[in-house]
Amino acid sequence: MLFISIMKSNLLSNIYNPTDLRLLKEEQLAQVAHELRQFIIDVVSVKEGHLGASLGVVELTIALHYVFNTPEDLLVWDVGHQAYGHKILTERRENFHTNRQLGGVSGFPKRAESVYDAFGVGHSSTSISAALGMAIASKLKGDFSKEHIAVIGDASIASGMAFEGLNHAGVTDANILVILNDNAIGIDPSVGALKKYLTAVKNGKNPKQNNIIKSLNFDYSGPIDGHDLPTLIKELNRLKKIKGPKFLHIVTTKGKGLQQAEENQVKYHAPGKFDASTGEIHLKSEENLPPKYQDVFGLTLLDLAKKNKKIIGITPAMPSGSSLKFMMDELPDRAFDVGIAEQHAVTLAAGMATQGMIVYCNIYSTFLQRAYDQVIHDVALQNLPVIFCLDRAGLVGEDGATHHGIFDIAYLRTIPNMIIYAPINEIALQNILYTVQSVPLNHPIAIRYPRGRGVLPKWETENFKNYQNIPLGKASCLKSGTKTAVLSTGAIGNNVIAAINELGNPETIAHYDFPFIKPLDNDLLDKILISFDQIITIEDGAKIGGFGNAVLEYASANNFTKKIENLGIPDIFIEHGTVIEQQHFCKIDVKSLVNLFSNIEK
Amino acid sequence: MLFISIMKSNLLSNIYNPTDLRLLKEEQLAQVAHELRQFIIDVVSVKEGHLGASLGVVELTIALHYVFNTPEDLLVWDVGHQAYGHKILTERRENFHTNRQLGGVSGFPKRAESVYDAFGVGHSSTSISAALGMAIASKLKGDFSKEHIAVIGDASIASGMAFEGLNHAGVTDANILVILNDNAIGIDPSVGALKKYLTAVKNGKNPKQNNIIKSLNFDYSGPIDGHDLPTLIKELNRLKKIKGPKFLHIVTTKGKGLQQAEENQVKYHAPGKFDASTGEIHLKSEENLPPKYQDVFGLTLLDLAKKNKKIIGITPAMPSGSSLKFMMDELPDRAFDVGIAEQHAVTLAAGMATQGMIVYCNIYSTFLQRAYDQVIHDVALQNLPVIFCLDRAGLVGEDGATHHGIFDIAYLRTIPNMIIYAPINEIALQNILYTVQSVPLNHPIAIRYPRGRGVLPKWETENFKNYQNIPLGKASCLKSGTKTAVLSTGAIGNNVIAAINELGNPETIAHYDFPFIKPLDNDLLDKILISFDQIITIEDGAKIGGFGNAVLEYASANNFTKKIENLGIPDIFIEHGTVIEQQHFCKIDVKSLVNLFSNIEK
Repeated sequence: MLFISIMKSNLLSNIYNPTDLRLLKEEQLAQVAHELRQFIIDVVSVKEGHLGASLGVVELTIALHYVFNTPEDLLVWDVGHQAYGHKILTERRENFHTNRQLGGVSGFPKRAESVYDAFGVGHSSTSISAALGMAIASKLKGDFSKEHIAVIGDASIASGMAFEGLNHAGVTDANILVILNDNAIGIDPSVGALKKYLTAVKNGKNPKQNNIIKSLNFDYSGPIDGHDLPTLIKELNRLKKIKGPKFLHIVTTKGKGLQQAEENQVKYHAPGKFDASTGEIHLKSEENLPPKYQDVFGLTLLDLAKKNKKIIGITPAMPSGSSLKFMMDELPDRAFDVGIAEQHAVTLAAGMATQGMIVYCNIYSTFLQRAYDQVIHDVALQNLPVIFCLDRAGLVGEDGATHHGIFDIAYLRTIPNMIIYAPINEIALQNILYTVQSVPLNHPIAIRYPRGRGVLPKWETENFKNYQNIPLGKASCLKSGTKTAVLSTGAIGNNVIAAINELGNPETIAHYDFPFIKPLDNDLLDKILISFDQIITIEDGAKIGGFGNAVLEYASANNFTKKIENLGIPDIFIEHGTVIEQQHFCKIDVKSLVNLFSNIEK
Repeated sequence: MLFISIMKSNLLSNIYNPTDLRLLKEEQLAQVAHELRQFIIDVVSVKEGHLGASLGVVELTIALHYVFNTPEDLLVWDVGHQAYGHKILTERRENFHTNRQLGGVSGFPKRAESVYDAFGVGHSSTSISAALGMAIASKLKGDFSKEHIAVIGDASIASGMAFEGLNHAGVTDANILVILNDNAIGIDPSVGALKKYLTAVKNGKNPKQNNIIKSLNFDYSGPIDGHDLPTLIKELNRLKKIKGPKFLHIVTTKGKGLQQAEENQVKYHAPGKFDASTGEIHLKSEENLPPKYQDVFGLTLLDLAKKNKKIIGITPAMPSGSSLKFMMDELPDRAFDVGIAEQHAVTLAAGMATQGMIVYCNIYSTFLQRAYDQVIHDVALQNLPVIFCLDRAGLVGEDGATHHGIFDIAYLRTIPNMIIYAPINEIALQNILYTVQSVPLNHPIAIRYPRGRGVLPKWETENFKNYQNIPLGKASCLKSGTKTAVLSTGAIGNNVIAAINELGNPETIAHYDFPFIKPLDNDLLDKILISFDQIITIEDGAKIGGFGNAVLEYASANNFTKKIENLGIPDIFIEHGTVIEQQHFCKIDVKSLVNLFSNIEK
C-alpha cells in the first residue's frame, strides 16, 4: 500500500493542468496513466459515480491533452461519463472528491465549471454537431490551425443525431476530428447493424478503403488499440497535421485496469461504493427497503406479458436502467433494446400499435425530449394507444441538470389525446400498468414515475394476484380537512403525507391524490374549489405548464376565484446534489412542507 | 384536347382501387401511368398542392399496387408529398379535387381517411421505423408473408431518425422493404455526404457489393430507373419472394412528365395554379400585397449579416421556405442548409454560439419539435444566445394537422432561460431580428411568426435604414379602454385590431400587444389586472401551457382574482382547411372576435 501511495503521488500530483502534462517526456505517460487510473478508482470507490467509462479512456485522455493544445484546441466528450480523467487533468484533481455533490464538481463536463469543458454534455450523440459548430466558427474567425475534437462511443454514434453531424461534417472543410471510442458497450452492450459492422471492421473483415465512414467523406484511420499510448500519440500527431474532417477509430475496454470492471461492464458502469484494491462492490442490505420503481415496472410488465401475447416492451438502450431486462431475458421476441434511438423507439411503437399490439415504450423522462415530435406526430395525432413509461421523472439527484425529468408534464399536457398518469406509489404503478392492457383507453398514455425506491417495503410480486383496474381520470381524497386542500400528483404526494403526519394530522388540511394530470378529475375538483378557502398544488415537475397550471386553467375557465398556490420546480435549471437537497431548494421536501403547512395552521 | 380527354378516362376511370389495377395486363400500365400523371396535373393545376413529388413516383406507385397486395401488404410513404397517385388509385380519385380543402381529402396519407394509408405522415423520415414496427408485429402475429414497405426520398433518408430505423431493421428478420426514391432533391436540392455518396453510386463509382446499405445488413439492389415500369415490376416481384430486410434504390426525376416541373424542381414542388397543358404558372399580382414574413426574415437577415460578420444563418432543408436562400446566395460561407437534420442544426448552432457567433437558426415551429431536447440540453441549459426563428408558427392552413406550429409556446415556455417573442407585424419582426444582434440578450430567444403574408403592404427594404431596438420584455397599449382588456401576442393581434375597428372602436375595450411571452411585462400586467373588470388573452397557439396560461400563472401568484378568459387553439388536432376556416373553428378569427366583443359591449 505504501508503494502504491508513493506511485500515486509521483507524477499526477504535479499536474495541475495539461500544460504540466505536456512538460513530461512521452515515456513518463504510462506512469501518469497508471496513477490517473488509480486516482479515479480511489475516489469513485468511496464517493461513487461513473467508473467504467473513464477507466476505458485513461490513455486517450492523456494522449489528447498531451498532443493537442487544450483548451485552445476544443475537446468535446460525448455524454461525458468518461470525462473523469479529463477533469482530474484539467485543474479539478483536488476538488474531484466533491464529484456529483451539491456545490461540487459536476459528474459531466460543464462549460460553467471549466474552460477545458468546451461543451456541456449528459445526453448522448451531441458531440459531433457541437464540435463541427465550433470548427466552422473558428474558420470564419480566420483561425485555421485550431483542432475541434469529438470523442464519441460506439453506442452514441449509432444515434441518429450523430449521423446527421457526420453527414454534414463530411461535406465541409472544417477542422474536426471525430474519435470513435469503440468498446462495444454503452451503459448496456451496444446493439444494431452499425455495431455489427464495426465489429467486423475490428476483426479485419471489412476493407478499410471503402467503409461507411470513408463513404461519408472522412479521412478514416484505425482501428488502433486505444490503450497503446505510443501508437495513440503517434496517430494523433499525424492527424493534427491533416486539415478537414478526420475520423479515428480506437478500440478500448470499458473498465480497463480493474479486473471486475472489465469482466462485468454493466455493473461497473456506476457500481456504487466498492473496495478500491479488490474491486469488490460493497453490497448494501436491501432487506426492508422498498423496491425500485424501475423494478416494479420491469417485474409487472414481465408478469403481464406472460399472460397477454399482444404486449411488447421497448427501451432505447436502457435495459438495465429501466429493468426491461426482466422481459428481455424471458420473452426476447417481444422485448426490444433498439439502442440510443428514442425517435425510432417511439415511431416503432406507433407502427406496432397500428397492428393491434400493446406497446410499453419505456424512456427516461429526460430522454423522451428526444422524441417529442414523434410523440405528437406519430402517436398522439393518430391517437394510437402507445403506453409511454417515463422512468426518472422529476428530480434525479446527482446526475444533475441534464438528467432531471421535469418538463414532461408541460410538454405532454399540451398535446391533444394524451393521458398523463403519475402513480403515488408502487401499487398504483403496478395497477396502471395492468389497467392499460386490461381496459382499452383508446388514447396514448404517459406514466411518469421517479428514480429510485418507492415507499412500500412490503411490496412483492405476490401482489400480481390482486391487480386492480384504475378508473380513468379519477382522483381521490387521502385525508379530509376543513380549510386548505393540498392537491398532489405522483410520488411527491408521499412528502405531503409525511408532512401532515409530522404535524399530527391537523384537521384544517386535506390531501388529495391526483394521479391523472390529464384528464383532470373535474368533478372532484369542482367540490374542492367550492369547499376550501385555499388550494395548494404540488408536483415534482416544472411549475410552468405543469399540473398546477392545469388546476389554474380549470378554475379560471369555470369562474372559481379561490386562491391557488402552485408548488413545484421553479423556472431555473437545478444543479446536482441529492434529491432531498434539490427538493429542499424547490421547497417541496418534507421539511419545507411542514413549515408551509404549519404557517397555514396559524 | 378531345384526344387527351378520351385517353384520360380510358383506363384510370375504371380503377376504383388496386384490385382493379391488378386486373390489367402489365403492358397496359404505361397507359395508366400516362393517365394518372395527367390526372394529377389537371387537378393540381387548378386546385393547387404538391406537384413534383407525385409526378416523380407515378410508375413506382402503379408498380407497388400492382405487385403487392395492398392494403394487406402495408405501404408507408415517407413525408407523403408524393402520395397523390397513391390516393387516386386507392378509392379517392373522385374526391381528389377536394385535396387539402376543409372536409376534403388530406394532402398527406392519413389513417383515418383510408385503409390504404397504413401510417399518417407529414414530417419526414418516419417511414422506416413505422414499417419496421408493423413488420415485427406481423411476425409476432404469425403472419410471415406480409410485406411492409417504406418509400423514402434521398433527402429524408439522410435524417437521423431514418438511420436509426435502418440500424435496427438491419439486425432483424422482419419483412421490410425500404425503397429509396433517389431524385437528389427534397423540397430544395439534397445536401450532405450521403447525398454525395448516393450520387457516386448512381454514377457507378462505388462498388455495389460493399456499400453503406449493405454494411447495415440489408439485401441491397439497384440503382434502377424508377420510370421504367417493366424493370420496376420485375424487381419488385423478385424482392417479394425474399424475406427479411431489403433495400431497393431507384432513380427518378422529380416533376417527371411536365417539362417545366422537371427543369425547375424547387418552384414546381408546390407551384400554385398553373396551365395544365403548357405548365406555365399563373402569376398573381403581388402589387400592394404585404410581404411574406419569411421574406422579411430572409431580407432582414441578409442586410444585418452584411454589416455584422458574426452573424450566421442555419436552415434544416428549408432554404426556399425560410427565405434563408437570400443569405445563402450572397454570403454562402455563413449561411448553411444542413439538410433534414433539425437536431444537428440546433446543436451546431449551439457549438457556433460558444465561439461568439450570432446564430439565427431558422426552423419551422412544427419541425422544432424534432429538436426539443437539443433546445433544452444544448442551448438553454448552457444559456447560449442562439436565435431561433420559428417560421410557420400558429395555424398553417391546407397542410393541416401535421404542420401547425401551435405547441411551441407551451413547450418553450417551460424551459428556463428562454425568451419568447412573437412580432405583431413585419416591422416588429425586422426590429427584433436587429435587436438580438445589436443588444446582447445573454439568453436564447425564440421568435415565432406565421406562415404567409404580413399586414403592411408598404413594407420595403428601405426600412432597414430605420431599425429600432426593441426593449426586452415590454408590452404596449395599442388601444385604451375602460372595461375589458384584450391581451394578444403576435400577429393574431391584427385580428383583434380588425374586430375592434369593425365595431367602431368601442370605448370599453382596450387592446394590449404582448410580443414577449417570456418574460412577461409584469409591470404593465399589474396595471391591467388592477384596472379592468375582465381580461381576455388571445394567441395563435395551444391554449394549454400557452400565453394565456402565463397570464393566469402571474395573476394567481400575485393574488389577482379578476376574470381571465383564454382564447387560442383548443385541445384537439385541427384538420386542414384555410387559415381563416381554422381560426374560425378556434374562435380567434375576426368574425368570432367581433361577436365576442359585441357581447361584452352589451
